[in-house]
Amino acid sequence: MAHPIFVLNGPNLNLLGSREPEIYGTQTLKDVEKLCVERAKSHGMGVEFRQTNSEAELISWIQEARDGASGIMLNAAALTHTSIGLLDALQAYEGPVIEVHFSNIFRRETFRQHSFVSLGATGMICGLGAHGYELAIDALAHLILKTGS
Amino acid sequence: MAHPIFVLNGPNLNLLGSREPEIYGTQTLKDVEKLCVERAKSHGMGVEFRQTNSEAELISWIQEARDGASGIMLNAAALTHTSIGLLDALQAYEGPVIEVHFSNIFRRETFRQHSFVSLGATGMICGLGAHGYELAIDALAHLILKTGS
Amino acid sequence: MAHPIFVLNGPNLNLLGSREPEIYGTQTLKDVEKLCVERAKSHGMGVEFRQTNSEAELISWIQEARDGASGIMLNAAALTHTSIGLLDALQAYEGPVIEVHFSNIFRRETFRQHSFVSLGATGMICGLGAHGYELAIDALAHLILKTGS
Amino acid sequence: MAHPIFVLNGPNLNLLGSREPEIYGTQTLKDVEKLCVERAKSHGMGVEFRQTNSEAELISWIQEARDGASGIMLNAAALTHTSIGLLDALQAYEGPVIEVHFSNIFRRETFRQHSFVSLGATGMICGLGAHGYELAIDALAHLILKTGS
Amino acid sequence: MAHPIFVLNGPNLNLLGSREPEIYGTQTLKDVEKLCVERAKSHGMGVEFRQTNSEAELISWIQEARDGASGIMLNAAALTHTSIGLLDALQAYEGPVIEVHFSNIFRRETFRQHSFVSLGATGMICGLGAHGYELAIDALAHLILKTGS
Amino acid sequence: MAHPIFVLNGPNLNLLGSREPEIYGTQTLKDVEKLCVERAKSHGMGVEFRQTNSEAELISWIQEARDGASGIMLNAAALTHTSIGLLDALQAYEGPVIEVHFSNIFRRETFRQHSFVSLGATGMICGLGAHGYELAIDALAHLILKTGS
Amino acid sequence: MAHPIFVLNGPNLNLLGSREPEIYGTQTLKDVEKLCVERAKSHGMGVEFRQTNSEAELISWIQEARDGASGIMLNAAALTHTSIGLLDALQAYEGPVIEVHFSNIFRRETFRQHSFVSLGATGMICGLGAHGYELAIDALAHLILKTGS
Amino acid sequence: MAHPIFVLNGPNLNLLGSREPEIYGTQTLKDVEKLCVERAKSHGMGVEFRQTNSEAELISWIQEARDGASGIMLNAAALTHTSIGLLDALQAYEGPVIEVHFSNIFRRETFRQHSFVSLGATGMICGLGAHGYELAIDALAHLILKTGS
Amino acid sequence: MAHPIFVLNGPNLNLLGSREPEIYGTQTLKDVEKLCVERAKSHGMGVEFRQTNSEAELISWIQEARDGASGIMLNAAALTHTSIGLLDALQAYEGPVIEVHFSNIFRRETFRQHSFVSLGATGMICGLGAHGYELAIDALAHLILKTGS
Amino acid sequence: MAHPIFVLNGPNLNLLGSREPEIYGTQTLKDVEKLCVERAKSHGMGVEFRQTNSEAELISWIQEARDGASGIMLNAAALTHTSIGLLDALQAYEGPVIEVHFSNIFRRETFRQHSFVSLGATGMICGLGAHGYELAIDALAHLILKTGS
Amino acid sequence: MAHPIFVLNGPNLNLLGSREPEIYGTQTLKDVEKLCVERAKSHGMGVEFRQTNSEAELISWIQEARDGASGIMLNAAALTHTSIGLLDALQAYEGPVIEVHFSNIFRRETFRQHSFVSLGATGMICGLGAHGYELAIDALAHLILKTGS
Amino acid sequence: MAHPIFVLNGPNLNLLGSREPEIYGTQTLKDVEKLCVERAKSHGMGVEFRQTNSEAELISWIQEARDGASGIMLNAAALTHTSIGLLDALQAYEGPVIEVHFSNIFRRETFRQHSFVSLGATGMICGLGAHGYELAIDALAHLILKTGS
Repeated sequence: MAHPIFVLNGPNLNLLGSREPEIYGTQTLKDVEKLCVERAKSHGMGVEFRQTNSEAELISWIQEARDGASGIMLNAAALTHTSIGLLDALQAYEGPVIEVHFSNIFRRETFRQHSFVSLGATGMICGLGAHGYELAIDALAHLILKTGS
Repeated sequence: MAHPIFVLNGPNLNLLGSREPEIYGTQTLKDVEKLCVERAKSHGMGVEFRQTNSEAELISWIQEARDGASGIMLNAAALTHTSIGLLDALQAYEGPVIEVHFSNIFRRETFRQHSFVSLGATGMICGLGAHGYELAIDALAHLILKTGS
Repeated sequence: MAHPIFVLNGPNLNLLGSREPEIYGTQTLKDVEKLCVERAKSHGMGVEFRQTNSEAELISWIQEARDGASGIMLNAAALTHTSIGLLDALQAYEGPVIEVHFSNIFRRETFRQHSFVSLGATGMICGLGAHGYELAIDALAHLILKTGS
Repeated sequence: MAHPIFVLNGPNLNLLGSREPEIYGTQTLKDVEKLCVERAKSHGMGVEFRQTNSEAELISWIQEARDGASGIMLNAAALTHTSIGLLDALQAYEGPVIEVHFSNIFRRETFRQHSFVSLGATGMICGLGAHGYELAIDALAHLILKTGS
Repeated sequence: MAHPIFVLNGPNLNLLGSREPEIYGTQTLKDVEKLCVERAKSHGMGVEFRQTNSEAELISWIQEARDGASGIMLNAAALTHTSIGLLDALQAYEGPVIEVHFSNIFRRETFRQHSFVSLGATGMICGLGAHGYELAIDALAHLILKTGS
Repeated sequence: MAHPIFVLNGPNLNLLGSREPEIYGTQTLKDVEKLCVERAKSHGMGVEFRQTNSEAELISWIQEARDGASGIMLNAAALTHTSIGLLDALQAYEGPVIEVHFSNIFRRETFRQHSFVSLGATGMICGLGAHGYELAIDALAHLILKTGS
Repeated sequence: MAHPIFVLNGPNLNLLGSREPEIYGTQTLKDVEKLCVERAKSHGMGVEFRQTNSEAELISWIQEARDGASGIMLNAAALTHTSIGLLDALQAYEGPVIEVHFSNIFRRETFRQHSFVSLGATGMICGLGAHGYELAIDALAHLILKTGS
Repeated sequence: MAHPIFVLNGPNLNLLGSREPEIYGTQTLKDVEKLCVERAKSHGMGVEFRQTNSEAELISWIQEARDGASGIMLNAAALTHTSIGLLDALQAYEGPVIEVHFSNIFRRETFRQHSFVSLGATGMICGLGAHGYELAIDALAHLILKTGS
Repeated sequence: MAHPIFVLNGPNLNLLGSREPEIYGTQTLKDVEKLCVERAKSHGMGVEFRQTNSEAELISWIQEARDGASGIMLNAAALTHTSIGLLDALQAYEGPVIEVHFSNIFRRETFRQHSFVSLGATGMICGLGAHGYELAIDALAHLILKTGS
Repeated sequence: MAHPIFVLNGPNLNLLGSREPEIYGTQTLKDVEKLCVERAKSHGMGVEFRQTNSEAELISWIQEARDGASGIMLNAAALTHTSIGLLDALQAYEGPVIEVHFSNIFRRETFRQHSFVSLGATGMICGLGAHGYELAIDALAHLILKTGS
Repeated sequence: MAHPIFVLNGPNLNLLGSREPEIYGTQTLKDVEKLCVERAKSHGMGVEFRQTNSEAELISWIQEARDGASGIMLNAAALTHTSIGLLDALQAYEGPVIEVHFSNIFRRETFRQHSFVSLGATGMICGLGAHGYELAIDALAHLILKTGS
Repeated sequence: MAHPIFVLNGPNLNLLGSREPEIYGTQTLKDVEKLCVERAKSHGMGVEFRQTNSEAELISWIQEARDGASGIMLNAAALTHTSIGLLDALQAYEGPVIEVHFSNIFRRETFRQHSFVSLGATGMICGLGAHGYELAIDALAHLILKTGS
């Protein structure tokens, strides 16, 4: 399994730990990256962990994954709800995709309850904070091993 | 941690393995129970695994959990989308609750894309088949140990 | 007036007193029953007081009322908003029906603001807690005596 | 308890008894006032009973209640469904407020099924004709005595 | 036929002739009154012609019509679209009612395309400017003579 | 004024007098034609009176009116609510157009409350039965003489 | 029972057997006519079987049925969902009317799930292909004999 | 053809004959059962006829049909409009399913015009009272014989 | 390639050149036909160019195309937005279909922004006036040659 | 610039300072008037400052402004969201109009997020408390001087 | 005609040929560019062909076109449906604009059926694959030559 | 007060003065910057004035403001209506935020009447052109001095 898992984070997630901690917790994105790397290592896998505020960059990373990633974990943050471009990119990707959110988006504002990303994802994990990232690594490892991709 | 985790399954899940396998997979509910029991054991915890076609029975089990369960995993199946009674019961339960679905409900019919259960759940895991149950056990163990409940 | 008044309570009302007391108050359902019995006695009437989590059981009790009750007080709780079966049963009942809710359902979530029960009820009393049950007994006594049913 | 209960009636209620008697009954508003005065007297309380076709006057009366009434019973009639000004006035009033309607508004035209008044009321009583006014007096007396306001 | 026809005009119609003449024409309300009086005289009838910016006053005039008018012509202007109180008053009036508008309200903004007045009116005439008032007088004369009211 | 007024009637109006008389009255379409002819004659004008069940034929008649009619009275019946083709034809006609309905369409089913015809009409007269046709003749005469068309 | 049953078929049904056979089957309309004639004969009745692509012609046939048919079976095809004119014609017909569709329209596109025809029909049979026509003949025979019309 | 047809009836249908006879007719459910048994016998088939107020029980019976019924006739009554659980059970059943309603549900309240059952049914018969049950037996016999199931 | 291209025009397009020229331009339909014939000739193809105000006739022409046309260009005008019958006919046609509109329908009234025709068309060209017809001929020629139909 | 600026305040603003201070602040309307007078004086202008609970009076004041005010600042409070009459009056006024709200209405209940006043206003200032009134005076002074009205 | 035509392509179109070929075909974007260049050359024009995943870059290119392009062909892909910024940029551009899509967007998901780009475009061509680009070049050449811009 | 005010401008505002001047006026963005700098100087404050077409850059600037700005004035232009990412960034910023628009967005297209920015802003100023920027500087100065931030 040479290719790493891509863990892609969208707008404002670079503020993690300092922004609305009652919703997003106090861990920084750096902390979360560490959790992911360790978890992946336990499955014998690597992680490519990135963050951007740009829809275009997220799209490009998903396109890059077509040749370079064995699976994608995507927390598209605000773009989850409005970006059809992310969906199109995901639909052109053949590996497993797990959508992740720190908070339970179904208990928040109405406009956060629709996800274009879901339409291009294998599954979703939400409401479990940073631990959700670890579970998503587990899920991806499970799916990658199962399909042998 | 004396109290077991309640794993509660709603209508038609007793048909698992024989019903629409392209959506729900080929494992039976018995198989899934075994996965859960083993996973919980790895966390030093027990599992109470049940299925019913009755909303009333599901409500009663959630009420029973108030004194008997350290956490709830709920796959309410068709009731997910219509039962306010389940939501009310969950809101009267203080421990962690994980909502689980075999399929990614956001890629299915419109009427399967709204969940009353979500409004009473800590988090949701969907689209990962039987493996999602294992991850939910992990999540509950994580939450129970964290809060010491 | 040989027939008692049926006071029928829906899902989760058995938790009264211990569930979300800021909304539902601290009295138990047992306390409320006592209030109803006394109030009815002051009108020279009896009360049949029941609770169930089951829509089917509620329907059967309303059907039973056709031959056994001089009036119905119904707090269908979560089923208020979704059960057409309760409405059908009420429309087959000829005596007076009062819909009761502890909280003012119009100040709560949107999905609690529509009532199928209302379409089959003479009147509604809400937002007055346990005291609303007493007023509903008064209202039923008033209606029963007026029509001599 | 020096302050009286304000019983405020909105547009067209002065026609009571002569307008659509199959919906509103045959008692005049004068008759209803008498019922209220007697009922309040039984609780050792007074009643200030008024009717107007003017939204502005209703708002002013509710403002007046801030210093002069121990509770408000409001049948805003047609204004129930459209007046945000009534709601604002009620939200600036701290005593108990009971919304009353002669008919069961939920069995009538769609546009009569939404109430701005409800958002500023403690509770609602509807569908019980003039008797609903008596029950609302009881409810207000109960609430006023309980809070000692 | 002793009772006159009531011609009742709502908010801002006192500005007629000086307000948006491309929509409402250049005749003043005084001019329109003259047209109505003459038209009614040709049918041997009288006219009571009034204007107000107040919903309450319009309601009161319609109530007054119960004992004093053989028919009502109502141009409720802006209140057409929002006043349920006008509808209630009209429903308590037994004679014929013609709703009139200077402009064709169905070719204007969406919020001008719904009329509560219509629900309480015998018929509607719109889009014909001041001449529509004359036709409405004719229509009322026709209806009054037909029913002999 | 050489050109006649076109009075065009849509589907099922040939049944007038025998169909739902509580809504449409007991006069036949022949009777209504006679009323129109006489009324037009009183203005020194002629009438071309037609009925069809066919949308295509109605469209063709409106097109024909471009060279042959000084005004159009249109009762499109059921086509009122669904035919954009009628609207397009009316918008290509430069003379005055009066939309007429026997019943007050705003007191009927929801699907009868939207009119495509209105978007292409000078004005509307409804709810006045056959007399509405006479008033529409008056209105057209008034408009034709005013504009000298 | 002198009058035949009218079996009326709407747009594109002349293509039956050659158009989308996975939805509409392989029988031609001629085949279906034969089934209907035989079925009616077994009840001692005749059948007048017609097809048209024209709404106007369908309306005229329903009008013709007022004097010439003991019952109507109507498969209005595409017009089912948009024609108010068909509804008006059916409402002017006093005998029994059965709406028929080859496919189960509720499992198809949203715009095929509303029927104006239903509002004017005694009952509906759908999803049963050509056999549904035979059952509708049975139903009409049953209704005609019952009412003796 | 060893397996019987399951005829399954939902909430409140046990009241048949005594409830709103202007909608549902005067025959009791016992009468309807007899009609079905006889009709099935004429096809050389048996009938298993049941009624319940419980959604859970209906679901279980449909599951039971997987091994025990050659076809299902389902009148889910009030559950028709709200139960996704019934739909899921039907989708797991491979034989033919006919949805039946006594009344024409499309001429009733809006909330009775959507059916989840339809999404899992071969066809629907409605508006034909008890006779609709007989026709549904015919339809099932036809479908069962055709497929040889 | 013996079969011609059918160029079919709907209601009111016969008025082209004299109707709302700011939207539809000043060329007549005759001019447009000439453009199409010449363009087709440049591809070695013929054109059958027709116009009608009748939905039924348009449907019949599309049916006729099944045996007589190598492709269809359809400007259904007002019927674009409401005719399901046209869609059904197109879906029964196997050759290429291009939908054409003179104006850009997406910059016009809301009711012109939905097209049933689109659901049965290969592609759409709009907003390019008469030149759009020429491009559609090119597109059809391209599609016909490609598939060799 | 002889004419003063009209500062018009709607329902319940007379309670300012004592009503929901967390939303509206602690300054009284008297305080706000003083701020406006001083601010206007700094621009060499006068202020006519009024409050009413009556829609009719607000309309009359806006009509009065046609001859007496060089600009209007309007905080219509609850009437903002429902009064078309205010809009009509504003549209008949030719000077500049600034809509003002103490709170940011877009962060409040849905029904406070639509404004009819906006459709007749030059601009809007909201969310800035009493300071917003001062800014609106500045804006009006700027607009009045610019246009020399 | 010195200025080239800008052919601007949005997100994920760089994947053309390798992404969902059943929808988008097998030609690469390079192939499409070649087609456009050749087609433009046949009109004596040049092409500036670009692709980006970035909304901001697309906006900048459209702004650049104000001084550098004689026309714009825009396939905004996913941004078509959500970007108001593209619309604003197009509205500031005075030359002709053709919107192009490979697939017929009206036969795809609902969220792909609304286009902000259309509101700023002269016309649209869709559903014709790469050939649609060639036709759009023809259309632009036609428009540019016509207006001499 | 060391930190400057950030004045951030979104897509296409760089075209100011040359784009749709009847909506946006003739001043360039450079002119507006000068107005802001001078106005801020009069309050003893500085201004950081920027424009971008990129959502990502706007988000980054708002994040930068957390440590570098005493207040934010944001005219997000087209992104106002669609960007949840801007809202998230604003909610992570603790200083005052004023939303500004040149035009009165409530008198424009429907899709410009919803603002995600408003949910994260202290207040809004719109419809006042470049002068609105000056007022927003005043408002920010007022808020910054008041809170001493």
